[in-house]
Amino acid sequence: MELFSRACQVIPGGIYGHTTPALVAPTASPYYASHARGCRYWDVDGNDYIDFMCAYGPVVLGYLHPEVEEAAARQRRSGNCFNHPSALMVELAERLIELIDFADWAVFAKNGSDVMTWSVRVAREHTGRPKVFMVDGAYHGIGSWCTPEDAGLTVEDRAHTHKFRWNDREGLKELFSRHGESCAALVLTPFHHPLFGDSQMLDPAFVDAVHAQCEHYGAMLILDDIRAGFRLDVHGSHRPFGLRPDIACYCKALGNGYEISAAVGRHELKLAASEVYFTGSFFGSSVAMAAAMATLNIIERDEVPARLAATGEAFCRGLVTLAEQYGLEVKLSGPPAMPFMTFANESNFHRSQQFVETALAAGVFLHPHHNWFISNAHEDADVAQALQRVRPAFASVKELFDC
Amino acid sequence: MELFSRACQVIPGGIYGHTTPALVAPTASPYYASHARGCRYWDVDGNDYIDFMCAYGPVVLGYLHPEVEEAAARQRRSGNCFNHPSALMVELAERLIELIDFADWAVFAKNGSDVMTWSVRVAREHTGRPKVFMVDGAYHGIGSWCTPEDAGLTVEDRAHTHKFRWNDREGLKELFSRHGESCAALVLTPFHHPLFGDSQMLDPAFVDAVHAQCEHYGAMLILDDIRAGFRLDVHGSHRPFGLRPDIACYCKALGNGYEISAAVGRHELKLAASEVYFTGSFFGSSVAMAAAMATLNIIERDEVPARLAATGEAFCRGLVTLAEQYGLEVKLSGPPAMPFMTFANESNFHRSQQFVETALAAGVFLHPHHNWFISNAHEDADVAQALQRVRPAFASVKELFDC
Repeated sequence: MELFSRACQVIPGGIYGHTTPALVAPTASPYYASHARGCRYWDVDGNDYIDFMCAYGPVVLGYLHPEVEEAAARQRRSGNCFNHPSALMVELAERLIELIDFADWAVFAKNGSDVMTWSVRVAREHTGRPKVFMVDGAYHGIGSWCTPEDAGLTVEDRAHTHKFRWNDREGLKELFSRHGESCAALVLTPFHHPLFGDSQMLDPAFVDAVHAQCEHYGAMLILDDIRAGFRLDVHGSHRPFGLRPDIACYCKALGNGYEISAAVGRHELKLAASEVYFTGSFFGSSVAMAAAMATLNIIERDEVPARLAATGEAFCRGLVTLAEQYGLEVKLSGPPAMPFMTFANESNFHRSQQFVETALAAGVFLHPHHNWFISNAHEDADVAQALQRVRPAFASVKELFDC
Repeated sequence: MELFSRACQVIPGGIYGHTTPALVAPTASPYYASHARGCRYWDVDGNDYIDFMCAYGPVVLGYLHPEVEEAAARQRRSGNCFNHPSALMVELAERLIELIDFADWAVFAKNGSDVMTWSVRVAREHTGRPKVFMVDGAYHGIGSWCTPEDAGLTVEDRAHTHKFRWNDREGLKELFSRHGESCAALVLTPFHHPLFGDSQMLDPAFVDAVHAQCEHYGAMLILDDIRAGFRLDVHGSHRPFGLRPDIACYCKALGNGYEISAAVGRHELKLAASEVYFTGSFFGSSVAMAAAMATLNIIERDEVPARLAATGEAFCRGLVTLAEQYGLEVKLSGPPAMPFMTFANESNFHRSQQFVETALAAGVFLHPHHNWFISNAHEDADVAQALQRVRPAFASVKELFDC
């Protein structure tokens, strides 16, 4: 709190963006990081947590994974940011295209927002059309066409952004019937993970409708795989859900915490992709590319997505069982590798907040309003210890809400 | 070329953005980086260059500066990307506010574009107005309001961007008289460094007009100090030119090659700054913040801006003298720390291209169309060696153009 009060003097809001402690639990959340290793995270007050947020996604193999750090260190001895890209940019593009079935090309940047907004422009350039369809409540970064807040925007910024509801086939058809002829792209996450809501998987009939509408109207399908990418399938999250994107965007897990994002796309879009200007001082930086090569290799070699799913399933099963022991009913949603828990029959998240506050005090980092992340550093013993530690959290919900 | 031909298969355009070799000299430029140290840069074919581009700006102290690398390594042992910022974010914000006279707060991101586009939104939120005035031919990143190419844009993207000419007082007044009441911000670089043009310094009377118009109409002045920041003055480039910005943006030199950008601003804008959503997976990453702390400390301790100016002056003087020896006339423009050379009486850059092609072959990395960068690793001996190496470049211009 002493650091936060200093921060409030010199940083608007003290802490901004998705790491704001007020979004978790204002009085119980840590505010500042000290260090982290594997699946363990320490705050500046020396409290330690079994971490189920993984830096909000980037950490897929565990903090400071030795092989990733070694690959990054090896490249760092040559340098990071040069007058040109290093050979690693070519190798990483080749690697992504090898892994991702529909991809014929790749580009790299720093933020998820960089690649999402650029991809929308590529679709606009390719189709010669302005409109973008996105799911209501989906998060695709801070591009002006999609940023979740209105502050600082002009009315023109959203002139061509149109929303439909997740899994709502009729709504989608209706939107296409109104604006399909001017639609450049439909943007979709592989599953829906709204803040303050259960995660929702794709209805196969909705997937069919998305493909049918995009094909009928000639709209591009852009997959926002920034949050889920390489956690569910090393070949991209479109695969388990049967999606056929034209462009897909990756970021978080790609470099296991190193600063990199990527977009990949079909051959048909390559000309447009070469025409939409895309640059940044650090887009070609090679240390993060070395980290990404190592991360992808380990994810494939160690079958990490299957391990994350198994670990996540064990954790989710354990939570359901514990809840029952305390006479509580919980709902786990989303893929087990990225689970989210809500309490049944409540919409105000008071139980979730109480649960997470107590879990934090007991040394388990969870989030009441945002999906969680399993990493490959979470071993069975960590899950067992986390389940042991959250017992008082269930007890306190039972006691306070007697539900 | 073998790497580039592989790249063309898997990356749109092979190499994209500002590092494109075709922008330098398609047949003579290196295409891929191998390694770099101090002011020396090696390409993948083993050619070495005395480097006057410094990774297009980020490298201000020389590649792999030992103190910066040590500071980054020390933080890296704790980790980089966490669930929260580390104490370094607060310390770095405090440090920037201490250095930059008008700044009351700071935020951090990854790209120059991130902070520029966000700053425009902050000005819009603060003023409740939509319009942005910028200099024709200025580069402020790839935000849709300012990106230099039209591909992928909608007409609405530029609805509120209006341009004026550098140092054109009458044009500026005319623009304000038409749209001043709806102007959120005027965006300015501390000197004008267009591609394909001499750099131009600010006319003091124009500075007065900028301040007078912004004050009269209540428009914010946003300084784009991304390219020049900390190279001309450790207290920000507004100081040597007498500018009084409301917000300033930094990136390139801030982390000596580590991925970080920053915006700082006046107290009056802090509420708006806290309201315009700003986030990215790696905005809080602490390794780049450690690098930035070390970089700023060294720039201040070693009076780096004065050293860059002296080194740049010696290099520029040497080039003028050499040109005269070959019966050629050159013009050096911009601050000596970021000089740019053109040949007198030519507008097509053919002499510049010939000069740079020959200089590259002789082991000096220069750019025919973009300003150059001096680093603190350029010693007198490096400048002397570079001047020796560029002799055949002047000779070839004289021979081919006999001007």
